[in-house]
Amino acid sequence: MAQNVYDRPEFFDGYSRMDRSVRGLDGAPEWPAIQMLLPELRGKRVVDLGCGFGWFARWAMSQGAASVLGVDLSENMLSRARAETADPGVRYLRADLESLELPEETFDLAYSSLTLHYVEDFGRLVGGVFQALVSGGHFVFSIEHPIFMASTRAGWMATDDGGRTWPVDHYAIEGPRVTDWLAKGVRKQHRTLGTTLNTLIDAGFAIRRVVEWSPTPGQLAAQPSLADELDRPMMALVAAQK
Amino acid sequence: MAQNVYDRPEFFDGYSRMDRSVRGLDGAPEWPAIQMLLPELRGKRVVDLGCGFGWFARWAMSQGAASVLGVDLSENMLSRARAETADPGVRYLRADLESLELPEETFDLAYSSLTLHYVEDFGRLVGGVFQALVSGGHFVFSIEHPIFMASTRAGWMATDDGGRTWPVDHYAIEGPRVTDWLAKGVRKQHRTLGTTLNTLIDAGFAIRRVVEWSPTPGQLAAQPSLADELDRPMMALVAAQK
Repeated sequence: MAQNVYDRPEFFDGYSRMDRSVRGLDGAPEWPAIQMLLPELRGKRVVDLGCGFGWFARWAMSQGAASVLGVDLSENMLSRARAETADPGVRYLRADLESLELPEETFDLAYSSLTLHYVEDFGRLVGGVFQALVSGGHFVFSIEHPIFMASTRAGWMATDDGGRTWPVDHYAIEGPRVTDWLAKGVRKQHRTLGTTLNTLIDAGFAIRRVVEWSPTPGQLAAQPSLADELDRPMMALVAAQK
Repeated sequence: MAQNVYDRPEFFDGYSRMDRSVRGLDGAPEWPAIQMLLPELRGKRVVDLGCGFGWFARWAMSQGAASVLGVDLSENMLSRARAETADPGVRYLRADLESLELPEETFDLAYSSLTLHYVEDFGRLVGGVFQALVSGGHFVFSIEHPIFMASTRAGWMATDDGGRTWPVDHYAIEGPRVTDWLAKGVRKQHRTLGTTLNTLIDAGFAIRRVVEWSPTPGQLAAQPSLADELDRPMMALVAAQK
């Protein structure tokens, strides 16, 4: 079973205070770039893998989606999601993405935000998503970028000339990476970008877009700390189609 | 016009002494992985962009290819290629990939080894390759990986714990990178992996494989210095299809 770090009080408290938890989708700087990868949602059946507080589910309904199934492992997150969602088109399901079984040819869009890098058996999940989508259906997701995650000492390093750089090592060594982020011992799964894409291709998906996210000039001007993302990508966004 | 560094004596001399120049394809550790990306060559018409000494052209003919057009900017390399190639199915053309015009629907395979990261207008070249391929034709190439190329101080860095790591910065800032490799002031073009893939997708290609190359256990045992490639990829291999 996957690690359920979101139900640890210290992690949940920290996560709940993040901009993306307080302000929702607009608090996530990558959201405009994700929107550009999404298909038209009117009338569509959506599954959100790692739905968290349900921000995306409610937004999808506001765009005319027919239904959203939000899946998450965290009881804390689902309970707030349920409390904040009135729309009967949204259903929440507590499930582990390591063992989730989705019905066949049922969804037009599978969406996932910053969740799949916690999944150990990515091939199994991708295969399940493929069969759960209708023909032509879309799979759009963000993950932590492997450049961000590869090194066991991931974090800015000072350089001799007074600058800073991001360390990359063990990039080809896939598997768990344990970090202290909001809580101690958070376990993520490092995969190369190649592995992520080839897993999609092997399942039958066509790759439509690969975005190693960085801010627009307007975003940089409004939020100068996003300059970090010019130096090394923290997130990768992928759009694929069945 | 592209920089023609291969015709500078000090670069050409250094390059000519590299394992891949002396031993040919088998001197390149990524060659087994590239072979896995290539289609069956019997009867196929091949274009090799940056053909160098013609090793690939001759190998392709040995696999039954119908013809190979080897393109390179370096007179030094082409002159050795011509001297070492007897097969009348191979033709060499001196041309700059920045302005190369290929005939339409003429090739079954476009191949390129460690050349395209010198090309400034990648979109133009990819568009030209697409129209030059027959429907179903393959485009298989290796490039320097953007992780290897991004930082202006690219080179191993010592870490506090006595280890080493590879610096990544300016990853999202695409454009020229000038390094001293075999000669001073060698100019390469940094592009994110996302840009490389999206350029192919926009031209109409389907992405078939993305390999961030690292050695097999057998290669590591035979050549321990390849452990560098476990820490950070130096090369990306891409297979796409029209």
